[in-house]
Amino acid sequence: MSGTLTPYELIRLKRDGGVVPPAELRALLDGYAAGRISDAQMAAFLMAVFFRGLTPGELAVFVEAIVESGTVLDLSGIRGPKVDKHSTGGVGDKVSLVLAPLVASLGVVVPMMSGRSLGHTGGTLDKLETIPGFRTDLGIAEMRAQLERIGCVLIGQTDEIAPLDRRLYALRDATATVESIPLIASSIMGKKLAEGADALVLDVKVGNGAFLPEEARALELARTMVEIGQVRGQRVTAITTAMDRPLGYAVGNALEMEEAILMLQGGGPEDLREVVLTLAAEMLVLGGVAADLASARDDAAAALADGRALQRMAEIVEAQGGNPAVLEDPALLPQAPVRRVLEADAAGWIHEVHAGRIGLAAVRLGAGRTALGGAIDPAVGFHITAKPGQPVEAGEPLATVHARTDSDAEAGLRALRDAIRIGEEEAPEPLPLIGLRITAADVAPAVSGAS
Amino acid sequence: MSGTLTPYELIRLKRDGGVVPPAELRALLDGYAAGRISDAQMAAFLMAVFFRGLTPGELAVFVEAIVESGTVLDLSGIRGPKVDKHSTGGVGDKVSLVLAPLVASLGVVVPMMSGRSLGHTGGTLDKLETIPGFRTDLGIAEMRAQLERIGCVLIGQTDEIAPLDRRLYALRDATATVESIPLIASSIMGKKLAEGADALVLDVKVGNGAFLPEEARALELARTMVEIGQVRGQRVTAITTAMDRPLGYAVGNALEMEEAILMLQGGGPEDLREVVLTLAAEMLVLGGVAADLASARDDAAAALADGRALQRMAEIVEAQGGNPAVLEDPALLPQAPVRRVLEADAAGWIHEVHAGRIGLAAVRLGAGRTALGGAIDPAVGFHITAKPGQPVEAGEPLATVHARTDSDAEAGLRALRDAIRIGEEEAPEPLPLIGLRITAADVAPAVSGAS
Repeated sequence: MSGTLTPYELIRLKRDGGVVPPAELRALLDGYAAGRISDAQMAAFLMAVFFRGLTPGELAVFVEAIVESGTVLDLSGIRGPKVDKHSTGGVGDKVSLVLAPLVASLGVVVPMMSGRSLGHTGGTLDKLETIPGFRTDLGIAEMRAQLERIGCVLIGQTDEIAPLDRRLYALRDATATVESIPLIASSIMGKKLAEGADALVLDVKVGNGAFLPEEARALELARTMVEIGQVRGQRVTAITTAMDRPLGYAVGNALEMEEAILMLQGGGPEDLREVVLTLAAEMLVLGGVAADLASARDDAAAALADGRALQRMAEIVEAQGGNPAVLEDPALLPQAPVRRVLEADAAGWIHEVHAGRIGLAAVRLGAGRTALGGAIDPAVGFHITAKPGQPVEAGEPLATVHARTDSDAEAGLRALRDAIRIGEEEAPEPLPLIGLRITAADVAPAVSGAS
Repeated sequence: MSGTLTPYELIRLKRDGGVVPPAELRALLDGYAAGRISDAQMAAFLMAVFFRGLTPGELAVFVEAIVESGTVLDLSGIRGPKVDKHSTGGVGDKVSLVLAPLVASLGVVVPMMSGRSLGHTGGTLDKLETIPGFRTDLGIAEMRAQLERIGCVLIGQTDEIAPLDRRLYALRDATATVESIPLIASSIMGKKLAEGADALVLDVKVGNGAFLPEEARALELARTMVEIGQVRGQRVTAITTAMDRPLGYAVGNALEMEEAILMLQGGGPEDLREVVLTLAAEMLVLGGVAADLASARDDAAAALADGRALQRMAEIVEAQGGNPAVLEDPALLPQAPVRRVLEADAAGWIHEVHAGRIGLAAVRLGAGRTALGGAIDPAVGFHITAKPGQPVEAGEPLATVHARTDSDAEAGLRALRDAIRIGEEEAPEPLPLIGLRITAADVAPAVSGAS
């Protein structure tokens, strides 16, 4: 498509609350993908979108432009249902590391393409790469071969898929236009649609450690993504989950990998287990290998208990060049030299374990990156056993800092003291761990056409 | 100054309606001036400013950063009061071409630095350069020498003055963040303050051919600029003038130069004369060479009538390398080969001569540029004698198109028919030619400090 309005006119139109005609919007996005529209013009347009939003028709064009900017994978030649999962990102969110092998072990093909840590949230790729030798940069041919053989890949997005999304995301990340619901929704769904899964489960985080802390906004994002799936013919179920406190105990790349291994061995923290089983059940039902959510959940619990999920993870690790011995001996993962324990100052109840602050503190320890392409320290982070609502005694250990240096460890302790609040009275209820469930039945029926 | 927040954090702060601390804002602007902050980040910041505005403290920092980004002229060594004039730009606005030599002929030093045509409005430099040989690119030493000798220069802004404003303006012009009152005000005042005049008269246009068409917005801009002058110790008077119809008859570079010469010879259209005399009176009073506005106006009218203003213009043209013979024989200016007259279809009253549409039509004829650095055709444009409110007979000539080709002339006629509306009933009153006057007495007293 080609447009007749100039980029300036399109920016002004959006800025002033108008509707950008589909062909014009597509020409702008294609022009940006092709390098004909400058970063500055697109940044201004995206900031105008931040303030003005996108109509459903504009949103459809955004998604389509992202999907069609690169290779659209056709996984129909691979036997079995293909179901993916995406999380909007959180602190301590190592769900994918358990969920993908677990669901694959029950007959669903999981073509999982993940991202890296950015800002206060972690990234699945960084966690996987703490396994010595593990490669996440598989090409499409390798990916197909592994999906046929093992039914699961845990990889990064290849350069061929949705390159426009990568350009837009890097720009948004530099220009503070990340927190826009239509931009987030089109980015996630454009990428996921190009990755060729039949169905998708979305884990939409809520709370101070989430991309969109407010529940109403998270819910709007969830609905928007489910609607996009409906328009584009992909079955999508979204679940909102709590991210006012970290998920599980571990925050930091190797620490989270270790916790994921614990869970694949049948253990692990209760909250992480609950989220994994809830999402696994959705994936198994969407994949058609379980009759209903309750039996799907039982199947998933069994596959964790009897080692099938762990076995599948070992196959994945081996196929992707990693050392599967870490699955038996997590001490082979990178270890931080300095450990310091935080103890409760006084008796009381845990009122808050502030996920957002802990995420930022983990970045400062070196666990995350502040710019694309930056280095991370795989070993550092926190292990926080304190959970909101728990009673504590004075002197009871709440958390451990894993740091590179003594001064980092001190800073980490200070950050923990700031993030963990203990009150003298019983704590108010934290956010429910599992919030709302949104399916195509909950949103408006699909309309044809983009305008 | 240096900032502790990242550009991302500053963009987000402004985006979310927060106040950017002075040192942080200054660091951002200085960083952009030095090329450390990307166009994309600044474009996003400016679009956030478009939506959120600037506090008085932020505005002061913007102005200061622009002033201090380059050379700040010190004209105190030049004898006499230094008074400049700035117009927010309009269609047919050739006021500076008459006003500067006129006021200089009455003892006020006029260090006038102007701009080029951009968008639908014309530019004084392009008009001046229709005089064969006329140079507008004087350096600072040449400028000083001429100010001492003749009391007036008509030049472009030198590269040394307010380079940050040029960078910001080019970016805003590419990213549809031009129409923001604090950004316009800081751009104009930052530049003008660096140019070193003691006082400044602002011609703030109102109506469909103005930068900010709505009267309330134009008034807000005027007040904002007067306030900036007050904070920075420059005496500023702003006058709002009508720009719902073109000023004078001529629209187009050589045509406007010719009309300015007519006025310097003692003739010219009545509306142009009224605006010139009103602004001249303000400049003469601010310069202290007239006791009050009424006597100043009489002085200015006399200097037009007796040829003093024309004589001063001849000295300026000669000093700047131009051929002063054009002042006696405007036919020496570039002439368009094709001329077509528009006649009234029917009798009635002129209801509208839409300045905005005529400005855009002039650009399409070649009189203006759509991008910085583009070429213009000096000869083409319109000569429109029709004025809103006038009665007309069927067949009466309303305007002449001056074009490069027959097809351009046809397009020009069509544009004129679209812009000039004749009604069967008497026309409503157009905007008053001279609107409101804003001085330091009309705005809040200056506060010290930037925050």
